[in-house]
Amino acid sequence: MSAEHIAGRVVFLNGEWVPERDAAISIFDSSLIWGDAVFETTRTFLHEPFRLKDHLSRLEASMAASGIHAGVSQDRFVELTSELIARNRDQYEPDVDFSIVHQVSPGVDSRYREESVTECASVLIYGHPLTKMLGEAAPWFDYGVNAVVPRQRSIPSRLLDAKIKSRSRLHYQVANHEVSLHGPDARAILQDEDGFITEGTGSNFFIVRDGELLTSEGRNVLRGVTRDTVLRLGRELGMPVHEINYEPYDVATADEAFFTTTPYCLVPATRFNGVPIGEGVVGPIYRQLADAFIEDVGVDFIAQAKTYAGRLAELG
Amino acid sequence: MSAEHIAGRVVFLNGEWVPERDAAISIFDSSLIWGDAVFETTRTFLHEPFRLKDHLSRLEASMAASGIHAGVSQDRFVELTSELIARNRDQYEPDVDFSIVHQVSPGVDSRYREESVTECASVLIYGHPLTKMLGEAAPWFDYGVNAVVPRQRSIPSRLLDAKIKSRSRLHYQVANHEVSLHGPDARAILQDEDGFITEGTGSNFFIVRDGELLTSEGRNVLRGVTRDTVLRLGRELGMPVHEINYEPYDVATADEAFFTTTPYCLVPATRFNGVPIGEGVVGPIYRQLADAFIEDVGVDFIAQAKTYAGRLAELG
Amino acid sequence: MSAEHIAGRVVFLNGEWVPERDAAISIFDSSLIWGDAVFETTRTFLHEPFRLKDHLSRLEASMAASGIHAGVSQDRFVELTSELIARNRDQYEPDVDFSIVHQVSPGVDSRYREESVTECASVLIYGHPLTKMLGEAAPWFDYGVNAVVPRQRSIPSRLLDAKIKSRSRLHYQVANHEVSLHGPDARAILQDEDGFITEGTGSNFFIVRDGELLTSEGRNVLRGVTRDTVLRLGRELGMPVHEINYEPYDVATADEAFFTTTPYCLVPATRFNGVPIGEGVVGPIYRQLADAFIEDVGVDFIAQAKTYAGRLAELG
Amino acid sequence: MSAEHIAGRVVFLNGEWVPERDAAISIFDSSLIWGDAVFETTRTFLHEPFRLKDHLSRLEASMAASGIHAGVSQDRFVELTSELIARNRDQYEPDVDFSIVHQVSPGVDSRYREESVTECASVLIYGHPLTKMLGEAAPWFDYGVNAVVPRQRSIPSRLLDAKIKSRSRLHYQVANHEVSLHGPDARAILQDEDGFITEGTGSNFFIVRDGELLTSEGRNVLRGVTRDTVLRLGRELGMPVHEINYEPYDVATADEAFFTTTPYCLVPATRFNGVPIGEGVVGPIYRQLADAFIEDVGVDFIAQAKTYAGRLAELG
Amino acid sequence: MSAEHIAGRVVFLNGEWVPERDAAISIFDSSLIWGDAVFETTRTFLHEPFRLKDHLSRLEASMAASGIHAGVSQDRFVELTSELIARNRDQYEPDVDFSIVHQVSPGVDSRYREESVTECASVLIYGHPLTKMLGEAAPWFDYGVNAVVPRQRSIPSRLLDAKIKSRSRLHYQVANHEVSLHGPDARAILQDEDGFITEGTGSNFFIVRDGELLTSEGRNVLRGVTRDTVLRLGRELGMPVHEINYEPYDVATADEAFFTTTPYCLVPATRFNGVPIGEGVVGPIYRQLADAFIEDVGVDFIAQAKTYAGRLAELG
Amino acid sequence: MSAEHIAGRVVFLNGEWVPERDAAISIFDSSLIWGDAVFETTRTFLHEPFRLKDHLSRLEASMAASGIHAGVSQDRFVELTSELIARNRDQYEPDVDFSIVHQVSPGVDSRYREESVTECASVLIYGHPLTKMLGEAAPWFDYGVNAVVPRQRSIPSRLLDAKIKSRSRLHYQVANHEVSLHGPDARAILQDEDGFITEGTGSNFFIVRDGELLTSEGRNVLRGVTRDTVLRLGRELGMPVHEINYEPYDVATADEAFFTTTPYCLVPATRFNGVPIGEGVVGPIYRQLADAFIEDVGVDFIAQAKTYAGRLAELG
Repeated sequence: MSAEHIAGRVVFLNGEWVPERDAAISIFDSSLIWGDAVFETTRTFLHEPFRLKDHLSRLEASMAASGIHAGVSQDRFVELTSELIARNRDQYEPDVDFSIVHQVSPGVDSRYREESVTECASVLIYGHPLTKMLGEAAPWFDYGVNAVVPRQRSIPSRLLDAKIKSRSRLHYQVANHEVSLHGPDARAILQDEDGFITEGTGSNFFIVRDGELLTSEGRNVLRGVTRDTVLRLGRELGMPVHEINYEPYDVATADEAFFTTTPYCLVPATRFNGVPIGEGVVGPIYRQLADAFIEDVGVDFIAQAKTYAGRLAELG
Repeated sequence: MSAEHIAGRVVFLNGEWVPERDAAISIFDSSLIWGDAVFETTRTFLHEPFRLKDHLSRLEASMAASGIHAGVSQDRFVELTSELIARNRDQYEPDVDFSIVHQVSPGVDSRYREESVTECASVLIYGHPLTKMLGEAAPWFDYGVNAVVPRQRSIPSRLLDAKIKSRSRLHYQVANHEVSLHGPDARAILQDEDGFITEGTGSNFFIVRDGELLTSEGRNVLRGVTRDTVLRLGRELGMPVHEINYEPYDVATADEAFFTTTPYCLVPATRFNGVPIGEGVVGPIYRQLADAFIEDVGVDFIAQAKTYAGRLAELG
Repeated sequence: MSAEHIAGRVVFLNGEWVPERDAAISIFDSSLIWGDAVFETTRTFLHEPFRLKDHLSRLEASMAASGIHAGVSQDRFVELTSELIARNRDQYEPDVDFSIVHQVSPGVDSRYREESVTECASVLIYGHPLTKMLGEAAPWFDYGVNAVVPRQRSIPSRLLDAKIKSRSRLHYQVANHEVSLHGPDARAILQDEDGFITEGTGSNFFIVRDGELLTSEGRNVLRGVTRDTVLRLGRELGMPVHEINYEPYDVATADEAFFTTTPYCLVPATRFNGVPIGEGVVGPIYRQLADAFIEDVGVDFIAQAKTYAGRLAELG
Repeated sequence: MSAEHIAGRVVFLNGEWVPERDAAISIFDSSLIWGDAVFETTRTFLHEPFRLKDHLSRLEASMAASGIHAGVSQDRFVELTSELIARNRDQYEPDVDFSIVHQVSPGVDSRYREESVTECASVLIYGHPLTKMLGEAAPWFDYGVNAVVPRQRSIPSRLLDAKIKSRSRLHYQVANHEVSLHGPDARAILQDEDGFITEGTGSNFFIVRDGELLTSEGRNVLRGVTRDTVLRLGRELGMPVHEINYEPYDVATADEAFFTTTPYCLVPATRFNGVPIGEGVVGPIYRQLADAFIEDVGVDFIAQAKTYAGRLAELG
Repeated sequence: MSAEHIAGRVVFLNGEWVPERDAAISIFDSSLIWGDAVFETTRTFLHEPFRLKDHLSRLEASMAASGIHAGVSQDRFVELTSELIARNRDQYEPDVDFSIVHQVSPGVDSRYREESVTECASVLIYGHPLTKMLGEAAPWFDYGVNAVVPRQRSIPSRLLDAKIKSRSRLHYQVANHEVSLHGPDARAILQDEDGFITEGTGSNFFIVRDGELLTSEGRNVLRGVTRDTVLRLGRELGMPVHEINYEPYDVATADEAFFTTTPYCLVPATRFNGVPIGEGVVGPIYRQLADAFIEDVGVDFIAQAKTYAGRLAELG
Repeated sequence: MSAEHIAGRVVFLNGEWVPERDAAISIFDSSLIWGDAVFETTRTFLHEPFRLKDHLSRLEASMAASGIHAGVSQDRFVELTSELIARNRDQYEPDVDFSIVHQVSPGVDSRYREESVTECASVLIYGHPLTKMLGEAAPWFDYGVNAVVPRQRSIPSRLLDAKIKSRSRLHYQVANHEVSLHGPDARAILQDEDGFITEGTGSNFFIVRDGELLTSEGRNVLRGVTRDTVLRLGRELGMPVHEINYEPYDVATADEAFFTTTPYCLVPATRFNGVPIGEGVVGPIYRQLADAFIEDVGVDFIAQAKTYAGRLAELG
């Protein structure tokens, strides 16, 4: 990732293409004042966005549910995404994939508008290389992460719907902060107030028991696109698949566990609150699903992570 | 408020004084990614900030509770505030007071930092004239607002502490959006899941019953500085004052009610879900407290609102 | 519906057949003092009661669960129902169907009994023409209603079991009152304290998503007889049918929605809190199920509603 | 209480004075259909109503909170009450006091109104001699009752406000039914879902500990008028008085306990779930408060109960 | 059961085989100080332990979940169990089966250890004849028990996991004590705070409705081994089997109900809170499942209970 | 603490005085089977028990609330305590105080009683020197402990009353285990499900703010005797004292904090979840209260701890 590349990337911001380095949001924007921006993160595989329409469809649902109007149609979002990739194509190494973020907020808060303008959304689209994020995660694919439950609980969807992907998520950061004390391979996995396991702070969670695949019913969680893909792959592989309420006891007595998330795809969790899950190693069902996922998307994301890790090491 | 004045205002942003118009936050700032910025809003009376140290002390508590480090001492914040006022003094009309915002976030999210920098907070301080905000509120002081309870409930402090003044408050906007359907003088007043009245979306709420002053105990609410001042004034005026749990039934059967909030000071509420509170007019206890407040701060905020309203009308 | 007809209808009240106009309950009856009456409402199709035995069986369950003894057997209730229809047959226009209500309470409250009588239930059976109720609803079948969630929540079944069809339902009226502010086509749809959608105030609710039929699991809801019929019809039509917990988010993102209720059968809901559901029009799955229902009961209830509406218009 | 007297009593029902025996509510009245009637029960002392204005003021609050309009002013209610007493005066023995009930419902449910009448409330006022009710309770004043907590919990005020005195109270009857299995001197005392003791099914509850008087804070309870009188008397007698949340543990370890309720005034509870409270006898603080109450109202309600018991025995 | 036999039984306690009569735990053992022992109870059929490995596997899960280390492997537990049976074989009548308990606690509480020993678990294994326990239960198999819901609720698994079989269960005893007032054939059946039926105090509960077998989902319950066997047998017999949330209403309207528990296998419940379930007699589905169970384990536990009852009567 | 002394101590167990080393509870005792023992721990100051009658009175309340009958009167408990001290007096160094435990359980579980004996409680009284417990705590008085909130929450008193001091407290051990990962000076401080701070695992907790003394209202906590003493001392010293609900935010922003507990009296907490409270050192209000406590009991418990620490060091 050389300096000139960075310097060259552009992002779409409120109707204009601006250099990524300069891309900034007014201090009076509602997304900063109220945290009321909604967004989506997809990633590319071989520079093609993964299930873009599904992500945009969820973005639309998030906007509807929080009363935000982008003033941009789904088709236009697709076009802009293509343009983003086209404009930046020679800014990425050929083997470097990137995440793509679409974000919408209501724009400048009405109290700070000097003129009596009508509502005017802020729309932001950018693509950021996965080199750093994925490279740093490379060891996780060999050793698995430690899924740690912090004191911070999920906010129930009746109060702040986790199915709406918004920027109001200080509680995720509180959870991340708490869990960071357990070492660099600890990842937060939240519990709701009923005691059920819900999701990570930006990811979904699966457990494997007696060959069956279990994940939280889609209530106090973001219904992740990768989660959806893994459920489909599990079914295609003949695994019984259940979306249910489950608890820490079930994780502690599971055979395997893993996170799903857009940039990392599937990440094995080999410990739960520091205690090994099953044998404490990356398990066969994980491997089977990861292989199926790799075949599905056409990119070996694990190999990719290791390649990026090497590049990060070179950069020092 | 003439155009040249606006053009001239400066804000403090990450160590520099920049024009307010250009003040913007990187799209990779943690405050935008996670909504994990904390802030304070005070206002001036005759260009002097109101209880600045109390606001800064609460800012420090918010930072501590959410694990954010400003890298700026309380004393330095006081100095910067003085400098803000000094630099902008000739940008405000002499009779125009302004709100002052201090905001801190952890800065650019680590996943987006190109170089391996250590944590580096974003610090923002700005002062914004109250002309528009207060001018638009002028009729409220004569007729009172309609306090409306939306379906959206307060998030309990055990999940996201309302005592921490943060930017993760999409739920406030959902509440505001819901209540806006009840007309321009409807203001949201939230209930928690126990059914208790908590606070407005950026304000506290009081009711008066049989000459006694009641407000929510300081649990699922921001413990407002103006709230604190009003409690003191009530005591000084010989009113029994209670911080308790109270319910919609108590508001519906109250004699008077009002909001407290930094920019508007005390705003009478004469209706509750559209039904008159008591006689449905601005009440004597409100007037008594508003007078005491005016004497305390040295500015007649009601007259000020009307002056600003006139100016807004002129600007058309 | 001519005046002489009305004058002629009789109801069964505590062992006697009395004119409907004079039918009244003692002010000391327990149903008035404590709201502890249970009841059932069925309706006729072509003057034949719909699933009478199922309704009477649920009445028996309601009595058992609330400790009320009718002193009248299920068979006797069937006989009395036949007699009700026979006695009133020439009081209805041939094309006018009617609702049939069976109601039981413990009778006069013991504190108000002058003599030391043992417990003596009040039993009431009446049949009321659907002309007004159904006629007023005629536009709903063309345009759909607006399903609005009020602040009033369902009372959880552990406190007052919604599966017991009782007259203690002030909370339904509070909900109806709240929702009535949203216009004449707004119908209340309740949420429980977990945030799940439960039922209308005397109806069940269904959503359609990707060709699947979803309704609330039978917990904090009355397990409606029409609901049961629609579930059966859905299965017969090859639709996947789920009784699950679902939330406002699911309604907001559904393709279609509708209410089921005895007098109106199936009523389409085309808006949710004022926002269109799917395309905002009566949908194909609704039409398919309504057609199946019409075939099942032998009466086109939609055409019937329009006929009645015409008659109401004539009556002016 | 002779037969001719009963025959002679009249009640006020929807604008007319009708014989009590014939007083009945239409089977289509909203109070029967939805349980949405609100009411008040006061009693006389020497044929003078006890704190009538306070009861009527609470009736007004109940109407406001449940959206019912009586169409009758507070003053008119006072007049009607005087008229009720005057009309019935020679129907009561001179030493027989009576309860007075004021009840309001929205009247015939709109779906059952033949003509398009506007809303038309049902208003009911009656006075019923306390002979039976109070006579049967006579032994309680000597031996105390057994306060029993049933499984049935209070419905929290956020769902159905206990402060609104309504007829939707099937749950009270379920509680009464459950408790009746513990013998004739068992009276239900409810717990809310937090585990706090709330109220009886139509009464308030007090405990005495170390000379201090404690009763539930006025949240999930009816804020009883007798409760209010007892709190005042306690204060006048120099007792520390607390309105707090308290639990079964506090009752089990209390020195004394008693119920307050309009017809019975103060009833000692000497057992809790069958286990003696303190010494298990009527205690000194109860006696002190009962004496003060007797002095306050000018009638020895305990002696009265015994007189009535004798009369009931004569009537056999 | 003769005296010499009792005198002769030995138990395994902390590495030694000691006479059962002398087997005792130090007053400083953590199991007594904190109630932090976990255990399993299986029983023999023809002196062979029932599903021993499943019980030991659950013991291991209980230890893991509560942080207790036995220092004894699963294989060693199996060996010790064989040795227990071998050592005691001639202490039991040939037709007397026995329960087998495996219990582990962390041993003497560290604050009471005189020397600085490292953690040293207490391990206890004993086998106790079922003569008394099962003999006393003999009438239940003919008449069924009365399943009574006490006020005491289940502790939710998020606070004290019912899936961990521990000795901290004072709340079970409180429930048992409460229910014992309903007569000798009353058995406690708990409800959780959501109102769902969970389990007995050491047993699971099933209901039968329309030929379908329902039991609580495995959340706030011990996932019993006999429960698991019955679920399997139900499936093998072609019954639809559901692990779901169900409520008192469902029990009250069920056709049959029964408890499962290790020593008693399957016990019919013919009443619920004193009211007959279905016909109020032992039902056909129970009989079918009991027969299948008898075939599965090779012992007619009902006949066995009656034999033991006869022996108890002789001992009288 | 020499070996002969230990060998010589005796305890009261079920009517007999037995050597402490041999004191053990039958494996069939209900306290082991169900964790249904209740107990009290007081300590001596100069070999005199501290507030013995208050402890015994609470023991009686615990027995009453859990349905356990000791068969031993309060007076007899006092006598036995005197005898315990007398019998063991020469077994303690003159300057070594000891804790005194009184424990009662229902005795051998009825299912394991060979003969049909009636209920027969187990009663246990012992005195254990504080040398080890207090000596190990010596550094806490200089540096304060780290009060850490684990994920394990308090069980609400409606489910298992913390005011009943029982042995069913596995959840305390789970909390202790969790917190032990934060180092040897970390002590658990629990939160209830409302988010309020309740108590330590066998201690109460106080915070100091602006010179006021705050502790949890006595709901989900053991109402400790030392807590009660400290409240009295605070009042005598002129401090405003409040028993209220408070939250982690209040601890994080407090000036000082400390635990109270029988053996350690008052222990300063200088950190909360690892973050300094106030200045992070033992504070002046703590010192003032500790001094008052020392004067009250006549023993400098801090000096005592240090003396014991020295002795432990000698013993190696």
